[in-house]
Amino acid sequence: MRLTVAVVGAGVIGAAVGGRLAADGAAVTLIDPHPRSGASWVAGGMLAPVTEAWPGEEDLLALGMASLRRWPAFAAGLAAAGHDPGLRTEGTLVAAVDSADRAELRTLAEFLATLDRKVETLTGRELRALEPGLGPSVRSGLSVPGDLAVDNRRLLDALLATADVEHIAVPATKVRPGAVELADRTVRADVVVVAAGAWSGGLHPALDGVIRPVKGEILRLRGRPGSLPPPGRTVRGIVEGRHVYLVPRDSDGLVIGATQSEAGFEPGPRVGGVRDLLADAELLVPGLADYVLVEAGAGFRPGSQDNLPVVRWLEPGVLAATGHGRNGILLLPGTVDRVAELIRESR
Amino acid sequence: MRLTVAVVGAGVIGAAVGGRLAADGAAVTLIDPHPRSGASWVAGGMLAPVTEAWPGEEDLLALGMASLRRWPAFAAGLAAAGHDPGLRTEGTLVAAVDSADRAELRTLAEFLATLDRKVETLTGRELRALEPGLGPSVRSGLSVPGDLAVDNRRLLDALLATADVEHIAVPATKVRPGAVELADRTVRADVVVVAAGAWSGGLHPALDGVIRPVKGEILRLRGRPGSLPPPGRTVRGIVEGRHVYLVPRDSDGLVIGATQSEAGFEPGPRVGGVRDLLADAELLVPGLADYVLVEAGAGFRPGSQDNLPVVRWLEPGVLAATGHGRNGILLLPGTVDRVAELIRESR
Repeated sequence: MRLTVAVVGAGVIGAAVGGRLAADGAAVTLIDPHPRSGASWVAGGMLAPVTEAWPGEEDLLALGMASLRRWPAFAAGLAAAGHDPGLRTEGTLVAAVDSADRAELRTLAEFLATLDRKVETLTGRELRALEPGLGPSVRSGLSVPGDLAVDNRRLLDALLATADVEHIAVPATKVRPGAVELADRTVRADVVVVAAGAWSGGLHPALDGVIRPVKGEILRLRGRPGSLPPPGRTVRGIVEGRHVYLVPRDSDGLVIGATQSEAGFEPGPRVGGVRDLLADAELLVPGLADYVLVEAGAGFRPGSQDNLPVVRWLEPGVLAATGHGRNGILLLPGTVDRVAELIRESR
Repeated sequence: MRLTVAVVGAGVIGAAVGGRLAADGAAVTLIDPHPRSGASWVAGGMLAPVTEAWPGEEDLLALGMASLRRWPAFAAGLAAAGHDPGLRTEGTLVAAVDSADRAELRTLAEFLATLDRKVETLTGRELRALEPGLGPSVRSGLSVPGDLAVDNRRLLDALLATADVEHIAVPATKVRPGAVELADRTVRADVVVVAAGAWSGGLHPALDGVIRPVKGEILRLRGRPGSLPPPGRTVRGIVEGRHVYLVPRDSDGLVIGATQSEAGFEPGPRVGGVRDLLADAELLVPGLADYVLVEAGAGFRPGSQDNLPVVRWLEPGVLAATGHGRNGILLLPGTVDRVAELIRESR
């Protein structure tokens, strides 16, 4: 008998898992009332385990490094299928402004050195030699050549386009072994995969209180005729203790994120979050003042209790692939492999 | 014979002129490829001749005061037709921050005193007694009870809904006596009215170089559950020489504008403009940090050479109603009357 799978959630995790299981021979149904609206759509697309790392998160760093190694082949597979997700290999600069920010930078550099990660400490002048758009407020930083970035929207489009699955655009209310309850019907399947991101907590008792929404504001900017080009590398900044990143896009623009706040599923970008992102990004790259603000949005990352993803059987027939926090896109290739493996082992 | 009229532009001026001429018995065609997208749609909706006044602009002030007096009846007419445009009568506060801003405020107060306008100088404490949301940075200001405000989108919806006209959603390329050239056809009419706002300059040689686009960024904010209510009055601020206004909306939100820049028809809000509006608005009303940024947009006001509107015959059969700059909504009732009068006189 052909395996039937129902995947709840058509973000990058759900779309990629669904596509992979279909390619492995399963009959897959992908359930999402609003594809292209969740955290995958709003993300920055950094594949940055090193510069996102922090002492105490060694497990997450190891997982991230393992998944990062799979990314070039993963992106190449999509590109070969005619859907290039826009992988960028220019690497990351981490830029610090005031003395407290520089101290945080040193802590990060020392931690990475203990892990044998390739990282180089640079002066403001050296940073500006690499990225002339960086402003005079940038006093020191790190170069992390190994980090990658991907265009999250091209990626999600690519995954949805290549996944040989049936789509159902109706909200799921509950999952249980053998079935997904929708608002208007029940979908039966041998395996149910919960990949509903921040909304996963409401679908199964074992995720209730385990997965919570972590809101983030994000901005999309586009250069104008005559404005300075965006940086070629991803720029992560530490400004007065706040973290900001600028991820360039192929099409003359960039994405700026990402604040973090926890207030449930309250929609829309907060004024204070947008204000901080604009101010911090402009401090790092003053020429952005001249850009056009194309979009100000907000998304909900699926936060877990230990910041590690939840990829495991919740009970026989119900598998979770959620809780990826701010690392869902980075951890995508590893998650897809792990889900496929768990299902293979169970049969 | 019934008079035929073709009005180019379905912003507030074109829609109201078209509606009025139709009510007077004409057969009216209203031509606009994108209704609800121009300066009328992006505006703040202040009806503020007094606080917008400046020495040297006495003609504009007189015109504005005359139009302001017609506004209550104009709004009541729409409301009586079932389309209330949301007129607000709470008045305006002008708030100043640093000492240079206070000097500008004094100049404005003295100028208004010479014109016998009702205006009261207040301390920061007195201002906060009227509007508790004003922050500690506000050190002095004026109360101008006579200024009104209107919900520009409800107004435009009301004008479009009540105008008994034929709509054509195709771009006009040229006007001449007896005809409007569209991209795909020619519309014939006894009278052609050019009410295409910032785009009027390209439609008739007499407006070429006379009407230019003056870009402005505007933000729409919405309170969240638990956030402080917006001010009840319109608040105009002078912050480090920049002008900002906050216009409350009935539906728990407010509109923040308006920057001015001249760079042709370059679309989209500039990062620097949005940053200034957010920073200045937050300085005036700190609780806005907690609001949601619903929309960041930009529009093009139709600027004229002397800042006065161009409402006159360009040649027999072609009438202009454009060039209203930042005062298009304020000057609407007077403009409609004047157009109707010019047409009546010509017959």
